[in-house]
Amino acid sequence: MIRPAELIERKRDGGRLTPEEIGELVLGHARGEIPDYQLAAFCMAVYFKGLTTEETLALTDAFVKSGSTLDLKTELGRSVVDKHSTGGVGDKTSIVVGPLVAACGVPFGKMSGRGLGHTGGTLDKLESIPGFRVELSNEEFVQQVRDVGLAIIGQSPDLVPADKRLYALRDVTATVDSIPLIAASIMSKKIAAGAEAIVLDVKVGDGAFMKSLADARMLAEAMIELGRGAERNVVALLTDMDQPLGWAIGNAVEVEEARALLSGDESPPDLFSLAVQAAGRLLSLSDLGIDADEGAKRAEAAIEDGSALEAYERWITAQGGDPSPEVLPKAPTTKELTADRTGFVAGVSALGLGRVALDLGAGRRTKEDEIDHAVGIRCFAKRGDEVQPGQALAIVYARDEDSAAHAVDEIRELISVADEPQPPRPIVLETLA
Amino acid sequence: MIRPAELIERKRDGGRLTPEEIGELVLGHARGEIPDYQLAAFCMAVYFKGLTTEETLALTDAFVKSGSTLDLKTELGRSVVDKHSTGGVGDKTSIVVGPLVAACGVPFGKMSGRGLGHTGGTLDKLESIPGFRVELSNEEFVQQVRDVGLAIIGQSPDLVPADKRLYALRDVTATVDSIPLIAASIMSKKIAAGAEAIVLDVKVGDGAFMKSLADARMLAEAMIELGRGAERNVVALLTDMDQPLGWAIGNAVEVEEARALLSGDESPPDLFSLAVQAAGRLLSLSDLGIDADEGAKRAEAAIEDGSALEAYERWITAQGGDPSPEVLPKAPTTKELTADRTGFVAGVSALGLGRVALDLGAGRRTKEDEIDHAVGIRCFAKRGDEVQPGQALAIVYARDEDSAAHAVDEIRELISVADEPQPPRPIVLETLA
Repeated sequence: MIRPAELIERKRDGGRLTPEEIGELVLGHARGEIPDYQLAAFCMAVYFKGLTTEETLALTDAFVKSGSTLDLKTELGRSVVDKHSTGGVGDKTSIVVGPLVAACGVPFGKMSGRGLGHTGGTLDKLESIPGFRVELSNEEFVQQVRDVGLAIIGQSPDLVPADKRLYALRDVTATVDSIPLIAASIMSKKIAAGAEAIVLDVKVGDGAFMKSLADARMLAEAMIELGRGAERNVVALLTDMDQPLGWAIGNAVEVEEARALLSGDESPPDLFSLAVQAAGRLLSLSDLGIDADEGAKRAEAAIEDGSALEAYERWITAQGGDPSPEVLPKAPTTKELTADRTGFVAGVSALGLGRVALDLGAGRRTKEDEIDHAVGIRCFAKRGDEVQPGQALAIVYARDEDSAAHAVDEIRELISVADEPQPPRPIVLETLA
Repeated sequence: MIRPAELIERKRDGGRLTPEEIGELVLGHARGEIPDYQLAAFCMAVYFKGLTTEETLALTDAFVKSGSTLDLKTELGRSVVDKHSTGGVGDKTSIVVGPLVAACGVPFGKMSGRGLGHTGGTLDKLESIPGFRVELSNEEFVQQVRDVGLAIIGQSPDLVPADKRLYALRDVTATVDSIPLIAASIMSKKIAAGAEAIVLDVKVGDGAFMKSLADARMLAEAMIELGRGAERNVVALLTDMDQPLGWAIGNAVEVEEARALLSGDESPPDLFSLAVQAAGRLLSLSDLGIDADEGAKRAEAAIEDGSALEAYERWITAQGGDPSPEVLPKAPTTKELTADRTGFVAGVSALGLGRVALDLGAGRRTKEDEIDHAVGIRCFAKRGDEVQPGQALAIVYARDEDSAAHAVDEIRELISVADEPQPPRPIVLETLA
């Protein structure tokens, strides 16, 4: 039997734990045999001293082993792909990428999360759709991936229970911000959920968890290593989150934007670019035997020939939802923000816009908060854009006049306009594999 | 209401907490309103980031306020002195210093602790004495200090409950080894117990908690600062714990050695020197109006004129014990270790000797272990001593032949003998006030 206090002390002093010790610590905690206070102290020691690759692999493995796992390859007779984003503002990429990949004939199965603070969650966005069910059993999930080619559901409660328990503890002990702990938490979920190939979208910028490219790179490399340890193909895209992704920030407005992109209507270039590149990467990791460029071409073609929209509609319908955009909830009040001068957009704070959307009611401050699916923002300004007086920069969708006016005032401060031309920023900053 | 996770995060990031925040955190924990896991993470953050003087003062204050306090000056109409040791091997100083000070007419009132691991505790040693009671009520404690001039008892359960609760948590989360946390824990007990003047014996060396003089100095300075904040006179002696203090290591053997010193019989020079200096310091901080040199002279005189032994006997009797040395428990087996060569003692590992005594049964590995009061060691070798073949270096007092032989073999390895003369080491390395 291990002595937890000795393991905490060894980590505190910069030493290493064996894979067996990591496993006993985490699984003992999940079984309720090792108390929360020892894991809290351990996680804080890890915050300061880190984990080696071997320790992080052992942690991920312990999380995976703590619950049931899906083996989609055996269930379906072919590889399934998955995608994960570390979270940002306006990030509806999964709602676009899922149908793109499915339309190209590759099964896409994803367990997703909810939003907290200024970052939204895919499940909350999907729940804007009347009738849409996010809670499917593992059997329903597997069957839908097989029959429809696409499912995005809530995290199954019987997967990675040790991670759930530890994450809840980290959340209240200021020990979330540790790269190895984040990497193990994310990758254990992906590995347990059974996809063979995974594209990671690691956001970088003021609206993201990782503020610097260097940190994002470290996290991406750690996750790729963990995927390799579990024999999964993993590619990481480091993508810009200094400004919101796409135009829409909220829930119904984001679903609407995703659907419009899939239908071939006008769409934000950054979202289009990221979705097509991510889909291309996923197709290149699938059993199609094509490269990422060919994958991206096929994804674009699926938009043009209508098969992407068809895949979207089939998917939403399969999960009980109504895919037509008219049924999405609408906010009672809208208010426009226009430019008051000529110039070039120098910056649009993703963190700031995320907080305004949160204030409008689109997000939750605590896990218990209710979300208003109708409210949100469309922000058209992107770094590098030239603007003219009177041009629409953003539209606010609000519950009432007061909150709309307040949001417009705040957004005005969050969009900086300069006299000199500003270079635009690419959406994909780096690709790691 | 404070948000504990925010306070943990701020400390983790090297920020400062206000005195109010520290108070709410610690008292909220003591009331059971803030869970152990948040304090565990907080203590680990403090381990890495420290506490400012203001924060440490606030922590000490919160500990003191969490329970009842004694005001011995008001109760007795005069100043009471106290002494604290950070713990070492063979440390029976309090059992000598109490009677010395009392014999010189200054009341001495001390709440003491038990031993754990290789370090012994004064209460365990005193419990070697048949009939001796360490659990006195606060009223009995005050009355005995008033009537007999001397009492050493166990920590009262209604003093510093917040420290007790936090210490128990630190003990199992590898967060004991933090200088501000140690300083606040020690000084809150001393302040709550009501003495006006305190001499701190901060041990330095392989057998002590503080391995280096620099660390010991930091701890001493932190404690002096905390004493000043509570308007107590504090002096710290930094004393050597690279070798055991005195000859005896155990329980009954240490009481016997302390009593022999007080009676004027032959005694270990290091223990004699430390006891007289500590007593001299305590007398200089009392209401006698004398300096430390005069105090030390009076302490020596008390040994010579028999008043120190009288004070010892009065004290032990008052607490229900029989002060005669014949009644102390004796181990069934003794075994001698002799030198096998000519040379000079270069080192006697305090840590090693403490562990051998622990193995013999003189200490406890866990709080639940029972102590054997009869077993122990007398180690006569001191750094710098010249030894001849056949000369007794140590005597082991054991339960049986096997454990005695094993202990002798181990002690042989712990006493290093060199060919060249070795400088002796002073017992008091530094004095801080």
